[in-house]
Amino acid sequence: MEITLTGVEGLPLVSEGDDIAALIVDALKSSNMELLDGDIVVIAETLVAKAEGNTVDLRRIEPSSKALEIASRTGKDPRLVEAILEESSEILKVGHDFIVSETRHGFVCANAGIDESNVEEGLATPLPEDPDGSARRILGALQELTGREMAVIISDTQGRPFREGAVGVAVGVAGISPVWDRKGELDLYGRSLQTTRVAVADELAAAASLVMGQADEGVPAVIVRGYPWGHLRATGSARELLRPRELDVFRD
Amino acid sequence: MEITLTGVEGLPLVSEGDDIAALIVDALKSSNMELLDGDIVVIAETLVAKAEGNTVDLRRIEPSSKALEIASRTGKDPRLVEAILEESSEILKVGHDFIVSETRHGFVCANAGIDESNVEEGLATPLPEDPDGSARRILGALQELTGREMAVIISDTQGRPFREGAVGVAVGVAGISPVWDRKGELDLYGRSLQTTRVAVADELAAAASLVMGQADEGVPAVIVRGYPWGHLRATGSARELLRPRELDVFRD
Repeated sequence: MEITLTGVEGLPLVSEGDDIAALIVDALKSSNMELLDGDIVVIAETLVAKAEGNTVDLRRIEPSSKALEIASRTGKDPRLVEAILEESSEILKVGHDFIVSETRHGFVCANAGIDESNVEEGLATPLPEDPDGSARRILGALQELTGREMAVIISDTQGRPFREGAVGVAVGVAGISPVWDRKGELDLYGRSLQTTRVAVADELAAAASLVMGQADEGVPAVIVRGYPWGHLRATGSARELLRPRELDVFRD
Repeated sequence: MEITLTGVEGLPLVSEGDDIAALIVDALKSSNMELLDGDIVVIAETLVAKAEGNTVDLRRIEPSSKALEIASRTGKDPRLVEAILEESSEILKVGHDFIVSETRHGFVCANAGIDESNVEEGLATPLPEDPDGSARRILGALQELTGREMAVIISDTQGRPFREGAVGVAVGVAGISPVWDRKGELDLYGRSLQTTRVAVADELAAAASLVMGQADEGVPAVIVRGYPWGHLRATGSARELLRPRELDVFRD
Protein backbone atom coordinates (compact mmCIF):
# COMPACT_ATOMS: atom_id res chain seq x y z
CA MET A 1 0.00 0.00 0.00
CA GLU A 2 1.29 3.42 -0.91
CA ILE A 3 -0.07 6.81 0.08
CA THR A 4 1.12 10.02 -1.54
CA LEU A 5 0.93 13.45 0.07
CA THR A 6 1.13 16.20 -2.54
CA GLY A 7 1.24 19.90 -1.73
CA VAL A 8 -0.98 22.18 -3.81
CA GLU A 9 1.69 24.58 -5.08
CA GLY A 10 1.08 28.10 -6.31
CA LEU A 11 -2.00 29.05 -4.31
CA PRO A 12 -2.29 32.86 -4.09
CA LEU A 13 -2.62 34.77 -0.82
CA VAL A 14 -6.30 34.43 0.03
CA SER A 15 -8.68 37.25 0.91
CA GLU A 16 -12.27 37.40 2.12
CA GLY A 17 -14.69 36.00 -0.43
CA ASP A 18 -12.18 33.91 -2.34
CA ASP A 19 -13.41 30.53 -3.54
CA ILE A 20 -10.96 28.03 -2.06
CA ALA A 21 -12.25 25.09 -4.11
CA ALA A 22 -11.73 26.98 -7.38
CA LEU A 23 -8.28 28.19 -6.29
CA ILE A 24 -7.23 24.62 -5.49
CA VAL A 25 -8.53 23.22 -8.77
CA ASP A 26 -6.81 26.02 -10.72
CA ALA A 27 -3.52 25.62 -8.86
CA LEU A 28 -3.53 21.88 -9.50
CA LYS A 29 -4.25 22.48 -13.19
CA SER A 30 -1.19 24.76 -13.39
CA SER A 31 0.86 21.85 -11.99
CA ASN A 32 -0.72 19.43 -14.49
CA MET A 33 -2.51 17.64 -11.68
CA GLU A 34 -6.16 16.86 -11.19
CA LEU A 35 -8.26 15.55 -8.33
CA LEU A 36 -9.27 11.89 -8.50
CA ASP A 37 -11.94 9.76 -6.87
CA GLY A 38 -10.82 8.83 -3.36
CA ASP A 39 -8.61 11.87 -2.82
CA ILE A 40 -8.70 13.54 0.57
CA VAL A 41 -8.05 17.28 0.45
CA VAL A 42 -6.53 18.66 3.66
CA ILE A 43 -6.77 22.44 4.01
CA ALA A 44 -5.14 24.63 6.69
CA GLU A 45 -7.73 26.38 8.84
CA THR A 46 -6.00 29.74 8.40
CA LEU A 47 -6.74 29.62 4.68
CA VAL A 48 -10.40 28.89 5.38
CA ALA A 49 -10.71 31.55 8.09
CA LYS A 50 -9.22 34.18 5.76
CA ALA A 51 -11.44 33.24 2.81
CA GLU A 52 -14.45 33.44 5.14
CA GLY A 53 -13.34 36.85 6.38
CA ASN A 54 -13.20 35.38 9.86
CA THR A 55 -10.42 37.56 11.23
CA VAL A 56 -10.30 39.52 14.46
CA ASP A 57 -8.90 43.06 14.44
CA LEU A 58 -7.03 43.13 17.73
CA ARG A 59 -6.66 46.93 17.52
CA ARG A 60 -10.42 47.30 17.98
CA ILE A 61 -10.72 45.08 21.03
CA GLU A 62 -11.33 46.55 24.48
CA PRO A 63 -9.97 44.05 27.02
CA SER A 64 -12.19 43.20 30.00
CA SER A 65 -10.82 43.21 33.54
CA LYS A 66 -10.62 39.40 33.41
CA ALA A 67 -8.56 39.65 30.21
CA LEU A 68 -6.27 42.22 31.83
CA GLU A 69 -5.77 39.96 34.83
CA ILE A 70 -4.92 36.87 32.72
CA ALA A 71 -2.72 39.00 30.45
CA SER A 72 -0.67 40.11 33.43
CA ARG A 73 -0.11 36.45 34.42
CA THR A 74 0.77 35.25 30.92
CA GLY A 75 2.54 38.24 29.40
CA LYS A 76 0.13 38.03 26.46
CA ASP A 77 -1.43 41.03 24.75
CA PRO A 78 -4.63 41.81 26.77
CA ARG A 79 -6.56 42.30 23.53
CA LEU A 80 -5.54 38.82 22.35
CA VAL A 81 -6.56 37.42 25.74
CA GLU A 82 -9.95 39.09 25.36
CA ALA A 83 -10.32 37.50 21.91
CA ILE A 84 -9.42 34.11 23.44
CA LEU A 85 -12.02 34.58 26.20
CA GLU A 86 -14.67 35.44 23.62
CA GLU A 87 -13.89 32.25 21.65
CA SER A 88 -13.95 30.08 24.78
CA SER A 89 -16.73 28.41 26.72
CA GLU A 90 -14.40 27.41 29.57
CA ILE A 91 -10.84 28.20 30.68
CA LEU A 92 -9.07 25.00 31.77
CA LYS A 93 -5.53 26.08 32.58
CA VAL A 94 -3.49 29.26 32.43
CA GLY A 95 0.18 28.53 31.81
CA HIS A 96 3.19 30.82 31.82
CA ASP A 97 2.57 31.99 28.26
CA PHE A 98 -0.58 30.23 27.11
CA ILE A 99 -4.20 29.66 27.99
CA VAL A 100 -5.80 26.24 27.54
CA SER A 101 -9.53 26.52 27.03
CA GLU A 102 -12.47 24.75 25.51
CA THR A 103 -13.62 26.66 22.46
CA ARG A 104 -17.23 27.29 21.53
CA HIS A 105 -16.84 24.33 19.15
CA GLY A 106 -15.73 22.03 21.98
CA PHE A 107 -12.03 21.83 21.06
CA VAL A 108 -9.64 21.86 24.01
CA CYS A 109 -6.55 23.67 22.81
CA ALA A 110 -4.15 26.51 23.55
CA ASN A 111 -5.24 30.11 22.97
CA ALA A 112 -8.64 28.99 21.63
CA GLY A 113 -6.98 28.19 18.33
CA ILE A 114 -6.50 31.88 17.54
CA ASP A 115 -3.58 32.27 15.19
CA GLU A 116 -1.48 35.36 14.63
CA SER A 117 0.71 33.85 11.92
CA ASN A 118 0.17 34.22 8.18
CA VAL A 119 -2.29 37.10 8.53
CA GLU A 120 -1.71 40.85 8.28
CA GLU A 121 -0.24 42.74 11.27
CA GLY A 122 -2.89 43.59 13.87
CA LEU A 123 -5.19 40.80 12.76
CA ALA A 124 -5.60 37.27 14.11
CA THR A 125 -7.57 34.33 12.77
CA PRO A 126 -9.85 32.38 15.10
CA LEU A 127 -10.92 28.89 14.06
CA PRO A 128 -13.67 28.93 11.42
CA GLU A 129 -17.15 29.57 12.87
CA ASP A 130 -18.34 26.10 11.85
CA PRO A 131 -15.38 24.06 10.58
CA ASP A 132 -17.50 21.05 9.52
CA GLY A 133 -19.79 23.41 7.60
CA SER A 134 -16.77 25.03 5.93
CA ALA A 135 -15.45 21.58 5.00
CA ARG A 136 -18.84 20.58 3.57
CA ARG A 137 -19.08 23.75 1.48
CA ILE A 138 -15.57 23.29 0.07
CA LEU A 139 -16.20 19.59 -0.61
CA GLY A 140 -19.46 20.44 -2.40
CA ALA A 141 -17.70 23.01 -4.56
CA LEU A 142 -14.80 20.65 -5.32
CA GLN A 143 -17.20 17.89 -6.35
CA GLU A 144 -19.17 20.34 -8.48
CA LEU A 145 -15.98 21.44 -10.27
CA THR A 146 -14.48 17.97 -10.74
CA GLY A 147 -17.26 15.37 -10.52
CA ARG A 148 -15.03 13.35 -8.17
CA GLU A 149 -15.95 11.62 -4.90
CA MET A 150 -13.63 12.99 -2.26
CA ALA A 151 -13.36 14.08 1.37
CA VAL A 152 -12.17 17.36 2.89
CA ILE A 153 -10.37 17.84 6.20
CA ILE A 154 -9.70 21.27 7.69
CA SER A 155 -6.55 21.09 9.79
CA ASP A 156 -4.94 23.12 12.53
CA THR A 157 -1.56 22.82 14.23
CA GLN A 158 -2.00 22.33 17.96
CA GLY A 159 0.07 21.47 21.00
CA ARG A 160 -0.92 18.68 23.34
CA PRO A 161 -0.57 17.85 27.02
CA PHE A 162 2.52 15.85 28.05
CA ARG A 163 4.28 16.04 24.68
CA GLU A 164 6.41 18.82 23.26
CA GLY A 165 5.78 20.34 19.86
CA ALA A 166 2.63 20.93 17.88
CA VAL A 167 1.08 18.49 15.39
CA GLY A 168 -1.58 18.74 12.71
CA VAL A 169 -5.09 17.81 13.87
CA ALA A 170 -8.49 17.87 12.19
CA VAL A 171 -10.90 20.65 13.19
CA GLY A 172 -13.47 20.09 10.44
CA VAL A 173 -14.33 17.16 8.17
CA ALA A 174 -16.69 16.45 5.30
CA GLY A 175 -17.40 13.19 3.51
CA ILE A 176 -15.42 11.08 5.97
CA SER A 177 -15.94 9.74 9.47
CA PRO A 178 -12.93 11.01 11.46
CA VAL A 179 -12.70 8.03 13.84
CA TRP A 180 -12.29 4.46 12.61
CA ASP A 181 -14.04 2.14 15.02
CA ARG A 182 -12.50 -1.31 14.67
CA LYS A 183 -14.41 -2.99 17.48
CA GLY A 184 -14.83 -6.69 16.81
CA GLU A 185 -11.82 -6.98 14.49
CA LEU A 186 -9.09 -9.49 15.30
CA ASP A 187 -5.33 -9.16 15.50
CA LEU A 188 -2.60 -11.31 13.94
CA TYR A 189 -3.29 -14.05 16.50
CA GLY A 190 -7.06 -14.01 16.33
CA ARG A 191 -7.46 -11.97 19.54
CA SER A 192 -9.71 -8.93 19.76
CA LEU A 193 -7.87 -5.76 18.80
CA GLN A 194 -6.90 -3.64 21.77
CA THR A 195 -6.84 -0.23 20.12
CA THR A 196 -10.22 -0.19 18.49
CA ARG A 197 -10.69 3.50 17.82
CA VAL A 198 -8.21 5.25 15.56
CA ALA A 199 -8.38 9.01 14.96
CA VAL A 200 -7.81 8.70 11.24
CA ALA A 201 -8.66 12.34 10.48
CA ASP A 202 -6.02 13.52 12.97
CA GLU A 203 -3.47 11.17 11.42
CA LEU A 204 -4.34 12.53 7.97
CA ALA A 205 -3.98 16.11 9.26
CA ALA A 206 -0.63 15.26 10.86
CA ALA A 207 0.58 13.67 7.62
CA ALA A 208 -0.51 16.71 5.62
CA SER A 209 1.20 19.02 8.11
CA LEU A 210 4.55 17.50 7.06
CA VAL A 211 3.96 18.95 3.59
CA MET A 212 2.34 22.19 4.68
CA GLY A 213 5.15 23.73 6.70
CA GLN A 214 4.19 27.10 8.05
CA ALA A 215 6.57 29.75 6.76
CA ASP A 216 7.00 31.68 3.53
CA GLU A 217 7.24 28.51 1.49
CA GLY A 218 4.03 27.32 3.18
CA VAL A 219 1.62 25.12 1.27
CA PRO A 220 -1.84 25.40 2.87
CA ALA A 221 -3.52 22.53 0.99
CA VAL A 222 -2.41 18.94 0.52
CA ILE A 223 -3.87 16.08 -1.51
CA VAL A 224 -3.76 12.66 0.19
CA ARG A 225 -4.03 9.92 -2.42
CA GLY A 226 -4.10 6.16 -1.98
CA TYR A 227 -5.52 5.91 1.53
CA PRO A 228 -8.40 3.41 1.48
CA TRP A 229 -11.25 5.08 3.37
CA GLY A 230 -14.32 3.59 1.70
CA HIS A 231 -15.42 2.13 5.06
CA LEU A 232 -15.32 5.65 6.55
CA ARG A 233 -17.53 7.27 3.93
CA ALA A 234 -20.07 9.34 5.89
CA THR A 235 -21.17 12.91 6.33
CA GLY A 236 -18.81 13.06 9.29
CA SER A 237 -18.17 15.69 11.95
CA ALA A 238 -15.00 16.67 13.77
CA ARG A 239 -17.12 16.62 16.93
CA GLU A 240 -16.63 12.83 16.90
CA LEU A 241 -12.99 13.57 17.76
CA LEU A 242 -13.91 15.36 20.98
CA ARG A 243 -13.86 13.26 24.13
CA PRO A 244 -17.09 13.64 26.06
CA ARG A 245 -16.43 15.66 29.19
CA GLU A 246 -17.66 12.92 31.50
CA LEU A 247 -15.09 10.47 30.09
CA ASP A 248 -12.21 12.92 30.42
CA VAL A 249 -9.97 12.28 33.42
CA PHE A 250 -7.91 15.41 32.75
CA ARG A 251 -10.65 17.91 33.60
CA ASP A 252 -10.86 19.22 37.11
CA MET B 1 6.55 18.72 -2.69
CA GLU B 2 5.46 15.10 -2.57
CA ILE B 3 5.90 12.57 0.21
CA THR B 4 5.22 8.87 -0.29
CA LEU B 5 4.38 6.43 2.49
CA THR B 6 5.04 2.86 1.43
CA GLY B 7 4.24 -0.17 3.53
CA VAL B 8 6.90 -2.89 3.76
CA GLU B 9 4.81 -5.82 2.58
CA GLY B 10 5.53 -9.48 3.30
CA LEU B 11 7.34 -9.20 6.63
CA PRO B 12 7.14 -12.55 8.47
CA LEU B 13 5.83 -12.89 12.05
CA VAL B 14 8.81 -11.88 14.16
CA SER B 15 10.30 -13.85 17.06
CA GLU B 16 13.00 -13.12 19.62
CA GLY B 17 16.40 -12.68 18.05
CA ASP B 18 15.16 -11.80 14.58
CA ASP B 19 17.12 -9.10 12.75
CA ILE B 20 14.52 -6.48 11.86
CA ALA B 21 16.85 -4.53 9.57
CA ALA B 22 17.61 -7.63 7.49
CA LEU B 23 13.93 -8.63 7.38
CA ILE B 24 12.99 -5.15 6.10
CA VAL B 25 15.71 -5.09 3.45
CA ASP B 26 14.73 -8.61 2.28
CA ALA B 27 11.01 -7.82 2.21
CA LEU B 28 11.67 -4.67 0.17
CA LYS B 29 13.84 -6.65 -2.25
CA SER B 30 10.96 -9.11 -2.78
CA SER B 31 8.81 -6.10 -3.73
CA ASN B 32 11.53 -4.77 -6.05
CA MET B 33 12.10 -1.81 -3.76
CA GLU B 34 15.24 -0.55 -2.10
CA LEU B 35 16.03 2.01 0.53
CA LEU B 36 17.35 5.36 -0.66
CA ASP B 37 19.26 8.23 0.93
CA GLY B 38 16.84 10.40 2.89
CA ASP B 39 14.33 7.64 3.61
CA ILE B 40 12.78 7.51 7.06
CA VAL B 41 11.88 4.01 8.21
CA VAL B 42 9.01 3.93 10.72
CA ILE B 43 8.70 0.65 12.65
CA ALA B 44 5.88 -0.38 15.00
CA GLU B 45 7.11 -0.83 18.57
CA THR B 46 5.41 -4.23 18.85
CA LEU B 47 7.69 -5.57 16.12
CA VAL B 48 10.75 -4.25 17.96
CA ALA B 49 9.61 -5.54 21.36
CA LYS B 50 9.01 -9.02 19.93
CA ALA B 51 12.36 -9.15 18.12
CA GLU B 52 14.04 -8.10 21.36
CA GLY B 53 12.17 -10.79 23.28
CA ASN B 54 10.70 -8.03 25.42
CA THR B 55 7.40 -9.70 26.22
CA VAL B 56 5.70 -10.19 29.57
CA ASP B 57 4.11 -13.52 30.40
CA LEU B 58 1.01 -12.43 32.28
CA ARG B 59 0.40 -15.99 33.50
CA ARG B 60 3.53 -15.78 35.65
CA ILE B 61 2.71 -12.48 37.32
CA GLU B 62 1.64 -12.32 40.96
CA PRO B 63 -0.43 -9.16 41.40
CA SER B 64 0.36 -6.96 44.41
CA SER B 65 -2.39 -5.63 46.65
CA LYS B 66 -2.14 -2.26 44.90
CA ALA B 67 -2.64 -4.01 41.55
CA LEU B 68 -5.64 -5.90 42.92
CA GLU B 69 -7.16 -2.65 44.19
CA ILE B 70 -6.71 -0.82 40.86
CA ALA B 71 -7.91 -3.90 38.97
CA SER B 72 -11.15 -3.88 40.94
CA ARG B 73 -11.72 -0.22 40.00
CA THR B 74 -10.88 -0.64 36.31
CA GLY B 75 -12.11 -4.14 35.56
CA LYS B 76 -8.66 -4.93 34.14
CA ASP B 77 -6.81 -8.21 34.67
CA PRO B 78 -4.90 -7.77 37.98
CA ARG B 79 -1.80 -9.35 36.41
CA LEU B 80 -1.89 -6.78 33.60
CA VAL B 81 -2.30 -4.01 36.18
CA GLU B 82 0.75 -5.34 38.03
CA ALA B 83 2.73 -5.29 34.76
CA ILE B 84 1.59 -1.68 34.20
CA LEU B 85 2.68 -0.71 37.72
CA GLU B 86 6.08 -2.29 37.16
CA GLU B 87 6.56 -0.30 33.93
CA SER B 88 5.47 2.97 35.58
CA SER B 89 7.29 5.54 37.64
CA GLU B 90 4.07 7.41 38.53
CA ILE B 91 0.33 6.78 38.21
CA LEU B 92 -1.41 9.96 37.00
CA LYS B 93 -5.04 8.95 36.58
CA VAL B 94 -7.12 5.81 36.89
CA GLY B 95 -10.06 5.87 34.50
CA HIS B 96 -12.99 3.53 34.16
CA ASP B 97 -11.05 1.04 32.05
CA PHE B 98 -7.54 2.46 31.76
CA ILE B 99 -4.61 3.70 33.78
CA VAL B 100 -2.65 6.78 32.72
CA SER B 101 0.89 6.69 34.02
CA GLU B 102 4.36 7.96 33.34
CA THR B 103 6.51 5.07 32.17
CA ARG B 104 10.10 4.49 33.24
CA HIS B 105 11.05 6.15 29.93
CA GLY B 106 9.06 9.29 30.78
CA PHE B 107 6.16 8.73 28.38
CA VAL B 108 2.75 9.68 29.72
CA CYS B 109 0.31 7.23 28.17
CA ALA B 110 -2.44 4.73 28.90
CA ASN B 111 -1.55 1.34 30.39
CA ALA B 112 2.19 2.13 30.31
CA GLY B 113 2.19 1.36 26.60
CA ILE B 114 1.74 -2.37 27.27
CA ASP B 115 0.08 -3.97 24.29
CA GLU B 116 -1.87 -7.19 24.22
CA SER B 117 -2.53 -7.16 20.46
CA ASN B 118 -0.47 -8.98 17.85
CA VAL B 119 1.31 -11.20 20.36
CA GLU B 120 0.52 -14.77 21.47
CA GLU B 121 -2.27 -15.38 24.02
CA GLY B 122 -1.08 -14.84 27.59
CA LEU B 123 1.73 -12.53 26.54
CA ALA B 124 1.87 -8.76 26.34
CA THR B 125 4.49 -6.43 24.91
CA PRO B 126 5.73 -3.49 26.96
CA LEU B 127 7.48 -0.66 25.16
CA PRO B 128 11.09 -1.50 24.24
CA GLU B 129 13.51 -1.15 27.18
CA ASP B 130 15.36 1.69 25.44
CA PRO B 131 13.46 2.72 22.31
CA ASP B 132 16.10 5.23 21.14
CA GLY B 133 18.75 2.54 21.54
CA SER B 134 16.61 0.09 19.56
CA ALA B 135 16.15 2.70 16.83
CA ARG B 136 19.90 3.36 16.73
CA ARG B 137 20.72 -0.34 16.44
CA ILE B 138 18.22 -0.85 13.61
CA LEU B 139 19.43 2.29 11.83
CA GLY B 140 23.05 1.11 12.14
CA ALA B 141 22.14 -2.28 10.70
CA LEU B 142 20.10 -0.74 7.87
CA GLN B 143 22.96 1.59 6.95
CA GLU B 144 25.41 -1.31 7.08
CA LEU B 145 23.21 -3.34 4.72
CA THR B 146 22.39 -0.55 2.27
CA GLY B 147 25.06 2.18 2.59
CA ARG B 148 22.25 4.75 2.68
CA GLU B 149 21.83 7.75 4.99
CA MET B 150 18.48 7.36 6.68
CA ALA B 151 16.56 7.81 9.94
CA VAL B 152 14.53 5.36 12.00
CA ILE B 153 11.45 6.09 14.08
CA ILE B 154 9.86 3.53 16.39
CA SER B 155 6.15 4.24 16.65
CA ASP B 156 3.33 3.36 18.98
CA THR B 157 -0.40 4.00 18.79
CA GLN B 158 -1.57 6.01 21.78
CA GLY B 159 -4.66 7.84 22.98
CA ARG B 160 -4.48 11.43 24.15
CA PRO B 161 -6.30 13.66 26.61
CA PHE B 162 -9.33 15.57 25.29
CA ARG B 163 -9.48 13.87 21.89
CA GLU B 164 -11.04 10.54 20.98
CA GLY B 165 -9.18 7.84 19.15
CA ALA B 166 -5.55 6.81 19.14
CA VAL B 167 -2.86 8.14 16.80
CA GLY B 168 0.66 7.07 15.90
CA VAL B 169 3.40 8.74 17.96
CA ALA B 170 7.18 8.34 18.10
CA VAL B 171 8.63 6.46 21.08
CA GLY B 172 12.17 6.09 19.74
CA VAL B 173 14.20 7.90 17.10
CA ALA B 174 17.63 7.60 15.51
CA GLY B 175 19.36 9.90 13.03
CA ILE B 176 16.73 12.63 13.29
CA SER B 177 15.82 15.31 15.78
CA PRO B 178 12.13 14.69 16.60
CA VAL B 179 11.20 18.34 17.20
CA TRP B 180 11.71 21.03 14.57
CA ASP B 181 12.47 24.30 16.31
CA ARG B 182 11.57 27.14 13.95
CA LYS B 183 12.25 30.00 16.34
CA GLY B 184 13.29 33.11 14.45
CA GLU B 185 11.62 32.14 11.17
CA LEU B 186 9.08 34.48 9.60
CA ASP B 187 5.58 33.88 8.29
CA LEU B 188 4.00 34.92 4.98
CA TYR B 189 3.78 38.53 6.21
CA GLY B 190 7.24 38.79 7.72
CA ARG B 191 6.02 38.31 11.30
CA SER B 192 7.63 35.87 13.70
CA LEU B 193 6.10 32.42 13.44
CA GLN B 194 3.73 31.62 16.29
CA THR B 195 4.07 27.85 16.33
CA THR B 196 7.80 27.47 16.50
CA ARG B 197 8.13 23.88 17.67
CA VAL B 198 6.71 21.13 15.50
CA ALA B 199 6.74 17.49 16.65
CA VAL B 200 7.87 16.17 13.28
CA ALA B 201 8.59 12.64 14.52
CA ASP B 202 5.05 12.34 15.87
CA GLU B 203 3.65 13.58 12.56
CA LEU B 204 5.79 11.02 10.73
CA ALA B 205 4.56 8.28 13.07
CA ALA B 206 0.94 9.37 12.57
CA ALA B 207 1.41 9.36 8.80
CA ALA B 208 2.96 5.88 8.90
CA SER B 209 0.12 4.66 11.10
CA LEU B 210 -2.29 5.28 8.21
CA VAL B 211 -0.40 2.60 6.26
CA MET B 212 0.25 0.26 9.17
CA GLY B 213 -3.29 -0.57 10.21
CA GLN B 214 -3.35 -2.96 13.11
CA ALA B 215 -5.19 -6.12 12.13
CA ASP B 216 -4.35 -9.24 10.14
CA GLU B 217 -3.36 -7.25 7.09
CA GLY B 218 -1.11 -5.16 9.36
CA VAL B 219 2.09 -3.71 7.95
CA PRO B 220 4.47 -2.97 10.84
CA ALA B 221 7.07 -0.98 8.87
CA VAL B 222 6.64 1.97 6.54
CA ILE B 223 9.10 3.89 4.37
CA VAL B 224 8.59 7.67 4.28
CA ARG B 225 10.23 9.12 1.18
CA GLY B 226 10.46 12.73 0.02
CA TYR B 227 10.26 14.53 3.35
CA PRO B 228 13.10 17.05 3.52
CA TRP B 229 14.68 16.59 6.96
CA GLY B 230 18.31 17.57 6.32
CA HIS B 231 17.98 20.37 8.91
CA LEU B 232 16.92 17.77 11.49
CA ARG B 233 19.88 15.45 11.00
CA ALA B 234 21.10 14.63 14.51
CA THR B 235 21.55 11.67 16.81
CA GLY B 236 18.13 12.51 18.23
CA SER B 237 16.16 11.16 21.16
CA ALA B 238 12.45 10.70 21.68
CA ARG B 239 12.99 12.27 25.12
CA GLU B 240 12.95 15.64 23.32
CA LEU B 241 9.22 14.96 22.75
CA LEU B 242 8.50 14.74 26.48
CA ARG B 243 7.29 17.94 28.11
CA PRO B 244 9.32 18.71 31.22
CA ARG B 245 7.19 18.11 34.28
CA GLU B 246 7.57 21.67 35.55
CA LEU B 247 6.11 23.04 32.30
CA ASP B 248 3.15 20.68 32.32
CA VAL B 249 -0.09 22.26 33.51
CA PHE B 250 -1.95 18.94 33.38
CA ARG B 251 -0.11 17.30 36.26
CA ASP B 252 -1.60 17.58 39.71
